[in-house]
Amino acid sequence: MLAKVNLAEKLGLIQEYWKPKIVGEINDACVKLVKVKGEFTWHHHKDEDELFLVLKGRLTIHLRDQDVHLEEGEFFVVPRGVEHMPAAAEEAHLLLLEPKTTLNTGNVQNERTAEAQWI
Amino acid sequence: MLAKVNLAEKLGLIQEYWKPKIVGEINDACVKLVKVKGEFTWHHHKDEDELFLVLKGRLTIHLRDQDVHLEEGEFFVVPRGVEHMPAAAEEAHLLLLEPKTTLNTGNVQNERTAEAQWI
Repeated sequence: MLAKVNLAEKLGLIQEYWKPKIVGEINDACVKLVKVKGEFTWHHHKDEDELFLVLKGRLTIHLRDQDVHLEEGEFFVVPRGVEHMPAAAEEAHLLLLEPKTTLNTGNVQNERTAEAQWI
Repeated sequence: MLAKVNLAEKLGLIQEYWKPKIVGEINDACVKLVKVKGEFTWHHHKDEDELFLVLKGRLTIHLRDQDVHLEEGEFFVVPRGVEHMPAAAEEAHLLLLEPKTTLNTGNVQNERTAEAQWI
């Protein structure tokens, strides 16, 4: 029996900010959900593009040469190798799409580095 | 200058049913948007998983051994090789995620076969 995924239901299971959870796999990519608030860590992913879709709230993706402001229903693809720092003044809910190999802090290892788990 | 994508704005550009349009690329995958109404064609994709996320309306994905009913904010991944036939009684708006190589009618070639274009 193959099962569908309800985004709101899965988001209800997430307690912590900046800890993406896996909710689906498709080919060599993962669909993840994450709740965010505040500023993350500047980082990049050497060989991996990363998609951010805002499901709720607002997100700013700071790049070194521009800021991308996302509202609900908007997405942005950070190309591989591009340094970025996501930030949200208020709680925001995001859908991420990235390769199975992607680590949340990319090239940086710090206290926010977390291996994504399934929910 | 890298640009964000507003889903509602892109959907406003789509006139025809069952003609997916490309709105983003990420690694070897495409993000597509499509408006659907009625029944599509039974088909499968030999080597490609395909994700259907309902943005508006309702979608039923008929499989040979089950029906998957999707509401707004729900997604389903049709695994590679699995025959499926999407259907929507009323107009529905979908986000699709699939490899760049995926053709809408998979293994079937008919009057609904259409190469996806960017919008």
